[in-house]
Amino acid sequence: MILKMEDVITRIPSGGVTSPKGFCAGAAAAGIKMKASGRLDLAVLSAGEPVPVAAIYTKNRVKAAPVLVSRQRTATGRAAAVIVNSGCANASTGAAGMEDAIAMATMAAELLHHDPENVLVASTGVIGVRLPMDRIAEGVTRLGCSEEGGADFARAIMTTDTVPKEYAVSAGGFTIGGCCKGSGMIHPDMATMLAFLTTDAPVEQGLLQAALQKAADVSFNMVTVDTDTSTNDMVFLFANGKAGGETIAAGSERAELFQRALDEVCVHLAKAIARDGEGATRRIEVIVRGAASEAEARRAARTIAASPLVKTAVHGADPNWGRILAAAGRSQADLDPDTCYIEIGGVCVYKGGTPYPFEKKEVSDYLRNDEVIIVVDLNLGEGTATAWGCDLSREYVTINADYTT
Amino acid sequence: MILKMEDVITRIPSGGVTSPKGFCAGAAAAGIKMKASGRLDLAVLSAGEPVPVAAIYTKNRVKAAPVLVSRQRTATGRAAAVIVNSGCANASTGAAGMEDAIAMATMAAELLHHDPENVLVASTGVIGVRLPMDRIAEGVTRLGCSEEGGADFARAIMTTDTVPKEYAVSAGGFTIGGCCKGSGMIHPDMATMLAFLTTDAPVEQGLLQAALQKAADVSFNMVTVDTDTSTNDMVFLFANGKAGGETIAAGSERAELFQRALDEVCVHLAKAIARDGEGATRRIEVIVRGAASEAEARRAARTIAASPLVKTAVHGADPNWGRILAAAGRSQADLDPDTCYIEIGGVCVYKGGTPYPFEKKEVSDYLRNDEVIIVVDLNLGEGTATAWGCDLSREYVTINADYTT
Repeated sequence: MILKMEDVITRIPSGGVTSPKGFCAGAAAAGIKMKASGRLDLAVLSAGEPVPVAAIYTKNRVKAAPVLVSRQRTATGRAAAVIVNSGCANASTGAAGMEDAIAMATMAAELLHHDPENVLVASTGVIGVRLPMDRIAEGVTRLGCSEEGGADFARAIMTTDTVPKEYAVSAGGFTIGGCCKGSGMIHPDMATMLAFLTTDAPVEQGLLQAALQKAADVSFNMVTVDTDTSTNDMVFLFANGKAGGETIAAGSERAELFQRALDEVCVHLAKAIARDGEGATRRIEVIVRGAASEAEARRAARTIAASPLVKTAVHGADPNWGRILAAAGRSQADLDPDTCYIEIGGVCVYKGGTPYPFEKKEVSDYLRNDEVIIVVDLNLGEGTATAWGCDLSREYVTINADYTT
Repeated sequence: MILKMEDVITRIPSGGVTSPKGFCAGAAAAGIKMKASGRLDLAVLSAGEPVPVAAIYTKNRVKAAPVLVSRQRTATGRAAAVIVNSGCANASTGAAGMEDAIAMATMAAELLHHDPENVLVASTGVIGVRLPMDRIAEGVTRLGCSEEGGADFARAIMTTDTVPKEYAVSAGGFTIGGCCKGSGMIHPDMATMLAFLTTDAPVEQGLLQAALQKAADVSFNMVTVDTDTSTNDMVFLFANGKAGGETIAAGSERAELFQRALDEVCVHLAKAIARDGEGATRRIEVIVRGAASEAEARRAARTIAASPLVKTAVHGADPNWGRILAAAGRSQADLDPDTCYIEIGGVCVYKGGTPYPFEKKEVSDYLRNDEVIIVVDLNLGEGTATAWGCDLSREYVTINADYTT
């Protein structure tokens, strides 16, 4: 008996990039960041053969060599694999950096028996330092690639991340898996930190790209840790079609289900980044409703989630709603203080242009939770958006005051 | 013998808002912030009679009651005095807050024998709390107003500021004085923190407003501490004409001298705010040259100065120039990494698209100075701008994690 699975999206426990059929991954400790030797820092992910791929890249005018190389290669809409390293961003490294990125992809191509043009490359770590190509060449020889390799892959791409970030779901007979890294320099602008997504659903490249952009807009692009957009941000989505069945067509019910499943994976990964923000002790979710437009809702939600004063207030469990209102006010989203409504953890703290009496201790206690939800209703229109961020702690400063030295 | 003073701008030692002729000021400890009783927190500044006044207000959509009241009153282009309190912003306090602001101005009007409509009002401190009007009424009775009151006035407007910020210059027979407060919630957008400027130069309101806007654009609007634009920002410039002589006309040489002198006062005060940024241990000056336009230079300079990663790197004396380049890249100013040039403390660290070899220890030692200068030359055009910020320390978090409670 076959159940009608069409509307059910199921999480796959411990799932990741190798959960969909036909993907393999592997990682090795190449000693790229010498201080952290022994740590996984080089990894490959393969779709087995050239398959439709969607990609989004950083909008930063300064783009790292791997971004430039991969962007050129995904222009064809197809790719077979990606090689990634952590510990060095290979950014601002000039022509030599471009050669290094290409050479790194070629090494993976030889290992996996792919055409080098079909292999993408991604890097994350310190800017302005050349890749240690000898150590990478040696590390590649120890890279395996198996259907159990997703967890190692997720671990190898970490930098200041404290936990690996993976997720996978199945729906309608196909599977979508993903993993990402991101902890600091997080304020994606139409692109994001490194994220790798895989699916065995049969999806054409056009739909795949549109679906990825939509998913990124409600997930990775709504995360902020420190307002710094990185030079190396990228998201890849490989679709190898191994789940079989008819190709999913744009506008169909299956396309809608695919979008919902993809959104779920991306939102889960985005929230994991916010929670693992450098030095963060809690995640902040900001829901803006009633904005004049969705664009304005997004702007207000991101501005509130990014506000250092909101972030420090949450860190100190201080129900200082004035900072939330002030951040919304400076976001340049249309706003009338008299119609604005603010809720922290379900408790109204501001309404109708004046402070609203609330139990300070109750809200302060709530702010000590692992997850803090702030709702702002502008009561002006239909625009809604959710942004994720984290509190700002002394530890953020400690982590970032001494990163390269 | 009379010297030709036309081109000389001279700093007045210990000068401030009462340095120009005919201005008086005074302050009292009214106990507005109960925890900090005994501290000066209420102050008046008077031009003696209604005189031309220029004003700039916050662009935040959420405007505090004193902003709304003062904005209405400066629409006439004239005012006689201003009353200010620290410890409470009187923001998001609804209709009652408006009444409080008006009542506060009326009290000052009675004290100084002015028409209430000619008295402006400013507040700074916690958002969303009503002013303690009984304590203000009592405090007003103890307010003096004298030509020696400038220093007390500057002290009374402080909140988390660690030092008062005053400056005055004389030039061409007239004097310009000023003081300001600002330490956190600093990222002015066409307006700024509280700043009070006075001059005895005879200047018409039209020229006065234009000169103030120009000066603010190269000073207060180029300071950033934490990207949070306040609800209470305002700058006033009173011109009582007591220095005598012909009215300064737009386009004249004296207008140019007045502009230069005003710029100097405003830039000095703006830099003092950056240096006194909450938790700051050093000031950062970012000079962007060679941008495609002045607007792009301003955007790039402000983005670099505001970047948490640049700020923490400076705090840790870490010459991580990649973060400077990444911040410039995300500012959306036109930028070609290959033509971009970066200098820290006069030492080139990036040039021609690749890292430039430099003595790491030398630059790291330089970054421990009280003032750090970063120069970025985009080599694309003629646009130039300077922004001021400060490092980001653990102390910033400590100050802001527990502000209202």
